[in-house]
Amino acid sequence: IVVQSAVKQEKQVSSKSTPTDLVTETDHQVEELIISTLREKYPTHRFIGEESSAAGVKCELTDDPTWIIDPIDGTCNFVHSFPMVAVSIGFAVRKELELGVIYHCFDGTLYTARKGHGAFCNGVRLQVSKEKDVSKALILTEIGAKRDPATLDIFLGNMKKLLSAPTHGVRIIGSSTLALCHIASGAAEAYYQYGLHCWDIAAAAVIIREAGGHVMDTTGPLDLMSRRVVAAGTREIADCVVKQLQPINYGRDDTDPDDLA
Amino acid sequence: IVVQSAVKQEKQVSSKSTPTDLVTETDHQVEELIISTLREKYPTHRFIGEESSAAGVKCELTDDPTWIIDPIDGTCNFVHSFPMVAVSIGFAVRKELELGVIYHCFDGTLYTARKGHGAFCNGVRLQVSKEKDVSKALILTEIGAKRDPATLDIFLGNMKKLLSAPTHGVRIIGSSTLALCHIASGAAEAYYQYGLHCWDIAAAAVIIREAGGHVMDTTGPLDLMSRRVVAAGTREIADCVVKQLQPINYGRDDTDPDDLA
Repeated sequence: IVVQSAVKQEKQVSSKSTPTDLVTETDHQVEELIISTLREKYPTHRFIGEESSAAGVKCELTDDPTWIIDPIDGTCNFVHSFPMVAVSIGFAVRKELELGVIYHCFDGTLYTARKGHGAFCNGVRLQVSKEKDVSKALILTEIGAKRDPATLDIFLGNMKKLLSAPTHGVRIIGSSTLALCHIASGAAEAYYQYGLHCWDIAAAAVIIREAGGHVMDTTGPLDLMSRRVVAAGTREIADCVVKQLQPINYGRDDTDPDDLA
Repeated sequence: IVVQSAVKQEKQVSSKSTPTDLVTETDHQVEELIISTLREKYPTHRFIGEESSAAGVKCELTDDPTWIIDPIDGTCNFVHSFPMVAVSIGFAVRKELELGVIYHCFDGTLYTARKGHGAFCNGVRLQVSKEKDVSKALILTEIGAKRDPATLDIFLGNMKKLLSAPTHGVRIIGSSTLALCHIASGAAEAYYQYGLHCWDIAAAAVIIREAGGHVMDTTGPLDLMSRRVVAAGTREIADCVVKQLQPINYGRDDTDPDDLA
C-alpha cells in the first residue's frame, strides 16, 4: 500500500525531471513535490532530502517514520542528458529501512522493495549475482565530489587495485542509485563508494537486501550517515572488495552539514 | 536503401544476442549471421569482423566495398547482463566510411547514419554537443584490454588529468560503440580510448560526423587501424582532451593480429 503511493509520486515526478531546466531548480521542485505529496498523506512523518539538507535542514535520522529522498540522483548526468538519472525514495521506521523505490527517469524502469516482501523491477522479482569469486566480478563505483589531487590518487589507486585483483572490470555510470540497482538485478557483483549520502543508499539498500544481497559500511554494518558503502551479491565478494580499498574521508551526513557535494 | 537492409540484420541479431550462451559462441553466431545475410545480398563485398579477425583472417581495409562488424560490443557487459551491449556495422567504400548502424541490444535503440544524410536515433535526428569549454564537458572512456600495472598507471593518470582539467566528470560504461553514440546524441562532450579496434569505431564515426561531431586519431586524422581515437562534439574539446593524454601503445589492427583483446 505505501509502496503504491510512492510509485505514484515517482511517475508525476519523472515527467517533471526530464526538461533541461536549471538543475538545482528541478531538484528542488521535485523534492518539494515528493515531500508535499507524502506529507499530505502522512502528516506526522519526517523527511530527509538532498535539497532540504543543502538548504540547511539538519540531516538526522530519528526513530520516527522518515522518508529519505534524492529527487535527482545523477545530477551531472542530468545536466548533460546522459541517460542515467533516477529518483530515489527510501523509508525508515525506528531507524530500520522498510521501503525503497527508485525510478530511472530516462527509460522508465521502476525498482521497488519492501522489507520481507522481495525486490522487483517493473514487477519482475530481482535476484543478486551469487558469484563468490572476485576475479569473475564486475565492479561499479562513483567518483565522488572531492577532486583534489590527493583524493583522486586514492580513488584511482582503489580502481587500480580492483582492476588488478583481477576483476572483470570497473564501471562508472554517474548515478549511485542506478549502479546499486544493477547490484540488485545481478548485472554486477559489487559496488563501493566513499562520499555518497544517506539519500543515495536508503532506497537501494532495501532493494539489494530484498534481492538477496549485502549492503554494508566499509568498516562494518551499514551506517546510513557514514558516507561509505560497499554492496555486493555475496558476502565473499564484499569482503574481497573492502580488503582492496584505501578509505577516503568525507565526514558524516549527520555532523558535517557543510560538505553536501 | 542499404541502411534498411542493415537494420533488418540488426533486428534478427539482437534477439539472438540476449540469451546468456557462452559469449564467444554468441559473438561468433551473430557475426556469421550478419556476414552471410550481407554476402547473399552483396556477393562481391568484403568483410572485416571481430570474430573472423580473432580466427586469423587478416584485418585489412582495401578500396573494395567493405563491411566492418562488431557482433557484440561490450562482451564483458554481455557476460554479466550489464545492460550496455551493442551490435555495430560500418560500411566503407574506397576506404571512406559511408554507413553506420549501431543497435543497443538491451533497450532496442537503433542509431543509423549515412554519409551526407544525417544521423538518427530511432528516426530522430542526432546533434552533438556544441560545448567548447572542457571544464563543462562530460568525458567518456573505456579501460582497454591491457591490465598490466604500467598500462593501468597511464590509463588512470589520463583519467586523473581529465578529472583535474577540470571537467564535469568521466564515465566508463563498458561499451565503446554505445559511449560513442552518446557523443553523437550530445549526452557527453568527448570520448577517447587507446586499444579499441576498427570495428568499434567504423559505424560510430559515421554517426558522430553526421551528427556534426569530430572523430580523430589522437595524433591526427582518423586512422581506423591505429587503435587510438578521440571523438568530440567540437574540435576545441577534442584538442583539449588530446593535450591531456599520455598514449598507450596497443599496436595496429592491420599489422599486429595477435593482440586482438
